Amino acid sequence: MINYWPVLRFLGILLVLIGVMMWTGLPVSWSFGSSDWKALLWSGLICMGVGAPLWFFIAGDKMAIRKREGYLIVTLGWLVLAIFGTLPYLLSGSLTTIPDAIFEVVSGITTTGASVYSDIEAQPEGILYWRSLSQWIGGLGIIVFTVAIFPLLGIGGVELFVAESPGPTSDKLHPRISETAKRLWYIYVGLTIGLVVLLLLGGMTLYESVNHAFTAMATGGFSTRNASVAAYPSPYIQYTLIVFMFLAGNNFTITYFALKRRFGRVWASDEFRAYLFLTLALSLVVAINIKMSGYESWEQAFRDATFQVVSVMTTTGFITADYTQWGEGVTLLFFILLFVGACAGSTAGGIKIIRHLVFFKNSYLEFKRILHPRAVVPLKLNGHNVSGRIITHIIIFLLVYLLTFLGGSLVLAFMGIDFLTAIGATATCLGNIGPGIGEVGPVDNFSWLSGGAKLVLSFIMLLGRLELFTILVLFTPFFWKTN
Amino acid sequence: MINYWPVLRFLGILLVLIGVMMWTGLPVSWSFGSSDWKALLWSGLICMGVGAPLWFFIAGDKMAIRKREGYLIVTLGWLVLAIFGTLPYLLSGSLTTIPDAIFEVVSGITTTGASVYSDIEAQPEGILYWRSLSQWIGGLGIIVFTVAIFPLLGIGGVELFVAESPGPTSDKLHPRISETAKRLWYIYVGLTIGLVVLLLLGGMTLYESVNHAFTAMATGGFSTRNASVAAYPSPYIQYTLIVFMFLAGNNFTITYFALKRRFGRVWASDEFRAYLFLTLALSLVVAINIKMSGYESWEQAFRDATFQVVSVMTTTGFITADYTQWGEGVTLLFFILLFVGACAGSTAGGIKIIRHLVFFKNSYLEFKRILHPRAVVPLKLNGHNVSGRIITHIIIFLLVYLLTFLGGSLVLAFMGIDFLTAIGATATCLGNIGPGIGEVGPVDNFSWLSGGAKLVLSFIMLLGRLELFTILVLFTPFFWKTN
Repeated sequence: MINYWPVLRFLGILLVLIGVMMWTGLPVSWSFGSSDWKALLWSGLICMGVGAPLWFFIAGDKMAIRKREGYLIVTLGWLVLAIFGTLPYLLSGSLTTIPDAIFEVVSGITTTGASVYSDIEAQPEGILYWRSLSQWIGGLGIIVFTVAIFPLLGIGGVELFVAESPGPTSDKLHPRISETAKRLWYIYVGLTIGLVVLLLLGGMTLYESVNHAFTAMATGGFSTRNASVAAYPSPYIQYTLIVFMFLAGNNFTITYFALKRRFGRVWASDEFRAYLFLTLALSLVVAINIKMSGYESWEQAFRDATFQVVSVMTTTGFITADYTQWGEGVTLLFFILLFVGACAGSTAGGIKIIRHLVFFKNSYLEFKRILHPRAVVPLKLNGHNVSGRIITHIIIFLLVYLLTFLGGSLVLAFMGIDFLTAIGATATCLGNIGPGIGEVGPVDNFSWLSGGAKLVLSFIMLLGRLELFTILVLFTPFFWKTN
Repeated sequence: MINYWPVLRFLGILLVLIGVMMWTGLPVSWSFGSSDWKALLWSGLICMGVGAPLWFFIAGDKMAIRKREGYLIVTLGWLVLAIFGTLPYLLSGSLTTIPDAIFEVVSGITTTGASVYSDIEAQPEGILYWRSLSQWIGGLGIIVFTVAIFPLLGIGGVELFVAESPGPTSDKLHPRISETAKRLWYIYVGLTIGLVVLLLLGGMTLYESVNHAFTAMATGGFSTRNASVAAYPSPYIQYTLIVFMFLAGNNFTITYFALKRRFGRVWASDEFRAYLFLTLALSLVVAINIKMSGYESWEQAFRDATFQVVSVMTTTGFITADYTQWGEGVTLLFFILLFVGACAGSTAGGIKIIRHLVFFKNSYLEFKRILHPRAVVPLKLNGHNVSGRIITHIIIFLLVYLLTFLGGSLVLAFMGIDFLTAIGATATCLGNIGPGIGEVGPVDNFSWLSGGAKLVLSFIMLLGRLELFTILVLFTPFFWKTN
C-alpha cells in the first residue's frame, strides 16, 4: 500500500520553498527597474498558496517514508517543480507557449542548460535570475536525493556513490544521513559564494557573477549572455570556471575530505583518480588536435580544449568555442563524452564515471572468467569487493540508458528531425548537458524544435536526472501491485 | 600450456580444403572463357602446398583440444583464410592492393558483404564465383564453430544458442556434437541447392543463381550485379530471396524441427517468435511509412520494406531500394537494425535476438528486483531458468560490442571520415551486414576509403564474426599466463 500523505506533505513543503526562492528574485528585478517583478511576485504567491495548506494540514510526524513513497516523492517533486516553475516565464510573457516554458524550466531544474531562448540578453533580469536559480535549486535537490533517497530506492548502484551512505539493504532513512546531507549543502553553498567572489574579482558584475556561480555549481550551464562564457574572453574568468566546473562535477564527499586535508582518502577514490586522469588526458588530446589544425597559441588551444572537455564531462554546458568545428574525430569524441558524465555524489548528470569503472573493470575480468569458469573473480572498487548484485544493476543501468537514448532519438527522427540532431539532442538532454551536435550544437539553441519535440526532450531530461529507474519503475506493474 | 600442434594441423586441413574450394571455380572460369583460371589454379595450389605438409606430418589423434587451443583455432582459422583468400584477387589482378584484397576477402569469409568494387560486372566470372563462395564457406564455418567450438569456449552465452549443445561447464567436445553439426550442414547445403533451383525457375542464369544462393544462405550479400538484387525486378525472385534470407537468419536447429514437422518445438522457441514478430512488425511500420510518403503501390511498398528489413536484420545486405532515402526516422531505424541481428545458430552475424531477449527480459525484471531486493527473480527463456552467470556474460557482451563500435568509429573519424559514415561503416562491419549509412549507404561501396581504414574495418568484421571475445581474449594477459 502506498501512503500518499507524506508525499503530498512533501510536495507542499517543496512548493512553499520554491515560492520563497522566487521572491528572492524580487530585489534583482527592482534593482534593474525591470517590469518582471509582478510575475515573480504572483508566481511565488501561487506556489505558497498551493503548498502551504498541504504542509500545514497534513500531520508530518509518524508517517514513515518507505520505498514506494520515495519513488513518488522524487518523481512528483521534480514534476511539481516543472509545472510551477513555468509561472514566472509565462506570467512575464518572456515565453509564450507551454512547451517552451516546460522545456526551459525542466532544463533548469534538471541542471541541463539547453535553452529555447534565441536572444537571452533581451530577457528581463528577474526572469534570467529565476532561470539560473532553477538550476541551482535542481543541483541542491539532487545532492539531498543522492544522499538521502536514492540509496533507499536501490537505484543505479548509488550505494557506491556516497562514501558514508547506508548499505543497499537498508529500508529506512539512516539518522546519519541528514548530517551528511547538511555537510554537502554547506560545501555547495560555500563554493557558490566563493565563485561569486572570484568572478566579481574578474570584472563580472554582481548580477552576472551570481547567475554564473549558480549555474556553474549546479553543472547547469545557463548563461545570461547569448555567447555563453565566450562573452567573457578573460583567461582568469575562464580558468576560474574550469576549476569550479571540475569541483561541481567532483563527488562532494571527496571535496569535503580535501577541505579537511585528508588527502589520503581523496586519492584512495578510484573514481576521483579516473575523473582527474580522464579530464587531463582528453583535454590534452583535444588541445594537441586543435593546435595542429591551426590554433595560433598553445595557451588558447589548451584553455579552449580544457574548458569544453570539462564543461561537457561535468555536464555543465558552458561554451567558449564550438567543438563541432574541430574536425570529425573531435566531434565524435565530444558526442561520446555526452555519455560519460562526471562523479557520482556531485551535481553532474549523465552515466557517471563510477558506473563506467564498474563496467570496464568487470568486462576486463570477464575474460579471466571465461578462461577460468570455476574461479571466483571479484571486482574491487576503492579497495573493496563490489557485490555481484550491484554490478549487475549498474550494467543494466547502462543498457537501459542506451535504450532510452535510442528510443528518444527514434521518436525525434520520426518527427522529421535530422539524424545527427536527433541523436545529439537526445544524448545531451538525457545526460543533462546542454549543447549537442547537429542543429543543436554549442552555438545553436532548441527554440526551432516543435512543441512535441520539446516535451519529449523535457521528459528525457527528467529521466536522465532521476537515474532512469526512479521514473520508469512507475510505469511497471510491479510498482502498483499490492503484495 | 598451449598445445600448438593440433592448431597447426587444423590450419593445414583448412588450407587444403580451401585450395580444393578454389579449384571448383576452374570450370566456372573455363565455361566463360575467362582468363582468371590461372589465378584460381595457382591460388589453390599454393593453399594445398602449404596446408598438406601440416596436415600429413602432424599426427592427429590423441591431441586434445581444450579451451585455449579452441580460441587459437577459431581466430587463426579465419586469419589464415583472410590471408590466403586474397590470392585469387591479387594473382588475377582484379584487385591490386593488399588492403583492398584483405577487405574483400574478410568481407567474404565473415559473411559481411561490404565491397571495394566500384564496377562488379567488369570482373571475371571465376573471381566473382570465388568471392561468393568465400561467403558460403564463411557461413559453413560459423555453423560448425557455433555448434562445436563456441560452447566449449564459453563465449557470449552461446550455450543458449543451440538447443542440443552441451552445458556451459563442459570442457571437452561432446560426442553428439559432430552429429548435430552434420545435420545443420545438410540443411545449409540443402537450402542452398533449393534456392539455386528456385532462382533458375525465376529466370536467373545458373551462374547468377549459384552466386546468389551462396551469398543469400550465408547471409553474406555479395551480388554479381552492381545494383545488387535491384537488378532483378521480378517480384518472384525478390520474394524468394526474402524467404531464404529469413531462413538463413533462423536458428538452423529450429529449421530442422520444422522440416521434421515438430512445430511445437519451433513455436516454443522464444527467439523464433521474437524474430518472426520483429520482422513482420518492422516491415509493416516501414511499408506504411514509405507508402504514406509517396510509394505508388502497396505491394511495392510492402516488398521493398520487407526486403530491406529482412536483408539488414539477417545481416545479409542485399539491396533492392535505398533506405537512406526513406526519411530520417526510417534511416535511424535501419541504423539501429544494424545492431539487432537475427537468430543464434544461423549464419547471421551481429548481436542476435536471443541476447536482446535476455537483455530486455532481465532489464524488465530488474524493476521488480529493486522493489523487492530480497526476492529471487529468475529469468526464463524457452521455459527454462537462465543462470545468473550467463545473463551477466550476455549483458557484458552487449556492452563490449558497443564499446568496440565506439572505438572503431573514433578511429575512423580521426582518420578524417565524416561522422555518419564512420558510425555507419563501423556498425555495418561489426554486425557483418554490408550496407551502412552516410557515404557507405546501400548504393555506395567502400572503395574510396583509405587502405588504413579498410584494414581497421577488416579487423572489426573479424571481431564481430567471432563474437568479440574469441579474438579479444588473445589480447589479455590471462590468456598467455600459465597456471
